[in-house]
Order: sequence, then structure tokens, then C-alpha cells
Amino acid sequence: MSRFWSPVVATLTPYVPGEQPQMQRLVKLNTNESPYGPSPKALTAIQSQTTDDLRLYPDPESKALKAAIAKLHGLEANQVFVGNGSDEVLAHLFLALFKQKQPILFPDITYSFYPVYCKLYEIEYQTMPLGPEFEINTTDYEVPNGGIIFPNPNAPTGRSISRTEIAALLKRNSGSVLVIDEAYVDYGTESSIPLLRGPNCPENLLVVHTLSKSRALAGLRVGFAVGHPDLIAGLERVKDSFNSYPLGRLAQAGAVAAVEDQAYLERTCSKVMQTREQLVEALSALGFDTLPSSANFILTRHPKHGGEKLYQALRERGIIVRHFKTPRIANFLRITIGTDEQTQELLSALQEILN
Amino acid sequence: MSRFWSPVVATLTPYVPGEQPQMQRLVKLNTNESPYGPSPKALTAIQSQTTDDLRLYPDPESKALKAAIAKLHGLEANQVFVGNGSDEVLAHLFLALFKQKQPILFPDITYSFYPVYCKLYEIEYQTMPLGPEFEINTTDYEVPNGGIIFPNPNAPTGRSISRTEIAALLKRNSGSVLVIDEAYVDYGTESSIPLLRGPNCPENLLVVHTLSKSRALAGLRVGFAVGHPDLIAGLERVKDSFNSYPLGRLAQAGAVAAVEDQAYLERTCSKVMQTREQLVEALSALGFDTLPSSANFILTRHPKHGGEKLYQALRERGIIVRHFKTPRIANFLRITIGTDEQTQELLSALQEILN
Repeated sequence: MSRFWSPVVATLTPYVPGEQPQMQRLVKLNTNESPYGPSPKALTAIQSQTTDDLRLYPDPESKALKAAIAKLHGLEANQVFVGNGSDEVLAHLFLALFKQKQPILFPDITYSFYPVYCKLYEIEYQTMPLGPEFEINTTDYEVPNGGIIFPNPNAPTGRSISRTEIAALLKRNSGSVLVIDEAYVDYGTESSIPLLRGPNCPENLLVVHTLSKSRALAGLRVGFAVGHPDLIAGLERVKDSFNSYPLGRLAQAGAVAAVEDQAYLERTCSKVMQTREQLVEALSALGFDTLPSSANFILTRHPKHGGEKLYQALRERGIIVRHFKTPRIANFLRITIGTDEQTQELLSALQEILN
Repeated sequence: MSRFWSPVVATLTPYVPGEQPQMQRLVKLNTNESPYGPSPKALTAIQSQTTDDLRLYPDPESKALKAAIAKLHGLEANQVFVGNGSDEVLAHLFLALFKQKQPILFPDITYSFYPVYCKLYEIEYQTMPLGPEFEINTTDYEVPNGGIIFPNPNAPTGRSISRTEIAALLKRNSGSVLVIDEAYVDYGTESSIPLLRGPNCPENLLVVHTLSKSRALAGLRVGFAVGHPDLIAGLERVKDSFNSYPLGRLAQAGAVAAVEDQAYLERTCSKVMQTREQLVEALSALGFDTLPSSANFILTRHPKHGGEKLYQALRERGIIVRHFKTPRIANFLRITIGTDEQTQELLSALQEILN
């Protein structure tokens, strides 16, 4: 605390990310990274840019990257906004679109950075409780609001809803922006991006993606949002009032190559989904209840063993998963889907703990 | 424009960076990049991190980088804040420290991003006119204020003031934070960082650096601020409410190696300063008046040729410099110091234009 802080600083409750332990020989299943590396083409592209040209500023508009994203998703380049990880994209959109007279809405159990952005920018919000099965009921959101945001699939539950349902919500919510945070969409969830294609692109839908999960580039820091060109223009105004060059030369080059290698993404995601189904089945045999997941993680609980106790017992065995103290999910573990080998280590450890 | 923007968005006047033209065979002297590449050790460090580990998040606290910066400057690690270029560091400090009841103060001719941040965060500001020789008079700043910021050397003038003068200003300004933006300090200006060393570190001085100029890593995006641990803690609160991981793995690794290679910095900066003196002399022979520069650029004018006309004439010859339409400096050119070869090309072109 310092008397020199702006008054807002003392009111902040900063986000606490999952830990990045430096221990060796660790089974790290706590921050939803891909167990496989990025596309080899991304590594080659980064290497080819690691030259004396790093003395030069990058393209402030990331034109090549926007073009690659637009091409992949059947959009125009002016429908694409890029940032230094999807967290930066989210931060900018909270300020650019959600600082309104009405409170914004998001689920009570969701990505815990949303209320943090609200405090930073002094935005009012209201949380909407998930249903008994931890599902998002889109009809709950039919109240006056300054904006709506939720992940699809939701995190940390892993539950997803259909594009049809999102289209219906969008139709009913014509007065504010609806943001679908699709960080985990590539593991079996319907993307809402097709709603943005063509001349009837809705004016108030934004879809956010990250390259940190399915593209396996958490260490490079790239995310993006797609939507109507007028929404994108608002985001660009905020970005250009904050940092002209959020993405360096290596990030832009690696991201272009990763986005272009869709075959690699499909192969690695399909492997993760296969491992997920095997893990859910094996956990069920151990007595765990697991929420249906369309993500690269699961939320699971054991009726006889508390979440925190299991988290600690796994940790003692060198296996790091995520435990949230949030009411309603304090008895759960969120487990990232790893390789088959890591999954086997996890299951052996759980067997030992439960015995 | 969109009815879905937050009201503040329409009021913004985004910063316009110097252009990054894609033309080949260009003499690019417009954005103050180093004409030499980064330390070869930085390139090696980046290469060694370009592996499958990019799938993993980076260290959210950039501990190794903070330690390297602290060691170089004789500070403690908790006196160091790092960000995605010094523009991000500046953005965070405007929100964290400058959102006060009184307006903040900065020179009328200075880094043109400062008023942009003020609009973004709805911060009042007042500009202080430079003196007749474009100098900063620190006594002008002895008025009630919510904070003071200026670059030393100032940009785009290149003029610097002494550490003694800054210490005196700091002593008189005990009620708000004084920020010295030392983006160009390594080209012959006294740094204020020594004032921060030891147990008597002032509570309200912050010094900002970038790796984009003297460290020749504009393409990597790394900057930092150093100051009292309590000021740094305020910056960390804002950063952790915005983006947990502003610096990727490659940026952290490259920056550590660059910061550690002080010999390389000294060698390249001394070469740039030598070229600068030769350029100033040659320009004088052509009739130009150049402000005394302690930076890797000069601000110069010709009594008989307008700045915009010269800018265009150079551009037609493939030489890009920077011209500002700001009153008082509209007749000047800001020219980045390049290699001796680029300097020769510039001088030949000017000779041709003036004849």
C-alpha cells in the first residue's frame, strides 16, 4: 500500500493464475495447456524470424495474422482483432464495450478473471447462477444488461451449449454485446463463429479465441476476437490508446504458421478428446462423478473425498491439478487432459490415495 | 462508430506510431530503432527456448528477468516491474499512479502517447511549455499536481537534464509521483536510477526503460520500470488485473540475455553517438540547425526549407524520417541515427534536395 497509488488500485482483487512450478519430473495438469507441442511449422517460423531484424518494430496492425485468421474462419480481415493472449483481448473488450450504464452479466461459476476486469475498469456486474447440473441457462440472461459474457464451453465446468441456443440468445439480446469466450472450443464444442460470416454479420456478437490451448502456444501469448467490423474498430481504438505493438515479431510469425496448420490442430485435439473419454471412464470406475466435458479438462469429484484433500495428496505425489475454493465447486478437482502416460500416472496416484 | 461502444471509446484519439513500411531497400530512420542488431546472446537465448515447451505458460512474474535488471542497476528485485514494451508499462502506471484528483503535468512537446493514456483512463492533464531552446524547466513543475512525467532525454527534442536537477525537483515535489521516461538514456544522458539505490529509495520516483532502443529488441516487446517497492506493488496489482502473462517465454529469455550483455550495449551505443556527432556536423555544413541531442535521434531544421517538404523529398528518395505537425516543431525533422552508410545516403539525398 502506498499513498501514491490511484484510489482504484486499493480496490482491486488481482487474478491468481494456476501456479507454474519449477519442479522437475512433475505431472502438470493444472493450467489446461496442451500436452503436445505446437505445430512444428510454428517453431520453424519463429526460428526464421530470430535475426537482427528483431531490432525493428513489428507490424503494429498484425496484418498477416489477421489475414490468416480471417481465411481460416471464412471472415474478412476487418472482423479480426488480435492481442497479447486472450486475457489482453478480454481486458480491452471490457473497457471498449462493457463500460455501460447497466451491469454486465456472467455466470457465478466461470472464468474468474471477469470480475477482476470489472473492478479494474469500474464496471458493474451481476452473476447468474448456473443450474443444478452446472449448466448455463441462456433464458436467465433475458434481463436488462450492459453486456453478456460466458465461455463456451464454460470453465471450469467444461459444459457447452449449442450454436442454435447462442443464436437464439443473441436474437433476444439486441441491446448489448454478447461475448462468447471460446478458449476451449476445439475440444468438441460448436463454435459461434459461423454466425459472423457473410453480409448479415450481427452487430453485437464477439467471439474470443486463444492460441494458448489447442494451438499449444501458451508461452507465446496470442489471442484474438472476431466480430462485426464496427465492434473491432472500437477494440482497435482502445488498443491504439494502450500499446501500438502488442504482438512482437516472433509472436506474429509463430501465430500465422500455427493458424495455418489446421491439420495439426485437428490431430492433437482428437487425441486429447480420446484421452479425455478414457480418463472419465477410468475415474468413474474409481467412484468419481465427472461433469460432461467439451474441453481439454474435466471437473470431477469423489463422493467420499474432499477436493482440497485430494488436491494435496496428488501434489505430494508430484501431480499438480487445480482446486478452487469457490462455493459449489470446492469439492471438485479440475484436471487438465494430459498425455496417455500422464493420465496413467494420475490414475495410479488416485488409486493409491483412495485405498 | 457503433452504438455498442462504451461511451469513453468515442472520445479517444489513438496514438499513431511511425510507419513500418514494407518497401525493400529503404533507409528507415523514422522510429528510433538501433541500426545494429540485438546482442547475439539474446538471439541464442531465444533459439534455445523455441521448443515444444512453448506449449507451457511463461513465468507470470518474470522472476529471472527482474533479477537480471535488478543486478544490472544495483537494485532489489522487488523494485522492478516488467511489461510488454515500455508502452504497456506506461499505460499501467498512468492507471495505477496518475488517476488522481489533481491533473498530471508533462511538457507540451514530448512523447505524444501521454495525452492518449490520459484520455483512455479519463485522467486530467496540463502541459508545460518547453523553454525557447526547447528545454524542460523543472521549476515550471512546482505547482499542485497529481503526478509528473517527462522523458529524459525528452523526445522528440533529444535534450536532456542532469540527475542533480531531477533530484532537486523530486525533493520539492513530495506529494505526487515523478516518472522519468528513460527510453533513450543510453546515448549520453545521466540516468536517475542511482537515486533509487539503497535504503533511502524515495517513495515517489519511478524510472521507465525500454529494450526497444539501445538493446535493439523493438521486435520482441519488453520494457520495465524501477522504483520503490510500494510503487511497484501498485503496478503489479494493475498488471495482475489485466494480463497475468504479459511477457512470453521468448521475450523473457531474450530480454535476460540482452540485459546481461552490457558490453554489447556500450559498444553499439558508443558507435551510434559517434555517428550522431558526425551527422550533426555535416548537417551544419548544409545549413541545418540541430538541437543538442543526448538520444539516438536528432531534431533538426533548415532555415530555408520546411520540414514537411524535406520529409516528402527524402521519402521520394527512399529515406524515411519522422515529421510532426505539432506547432513549434512542424519545421523540424526527427532523424534516427543509423549506420554510417545510411547517414551517408541521407546526407547525399539532402545535398541533392537543397541544390
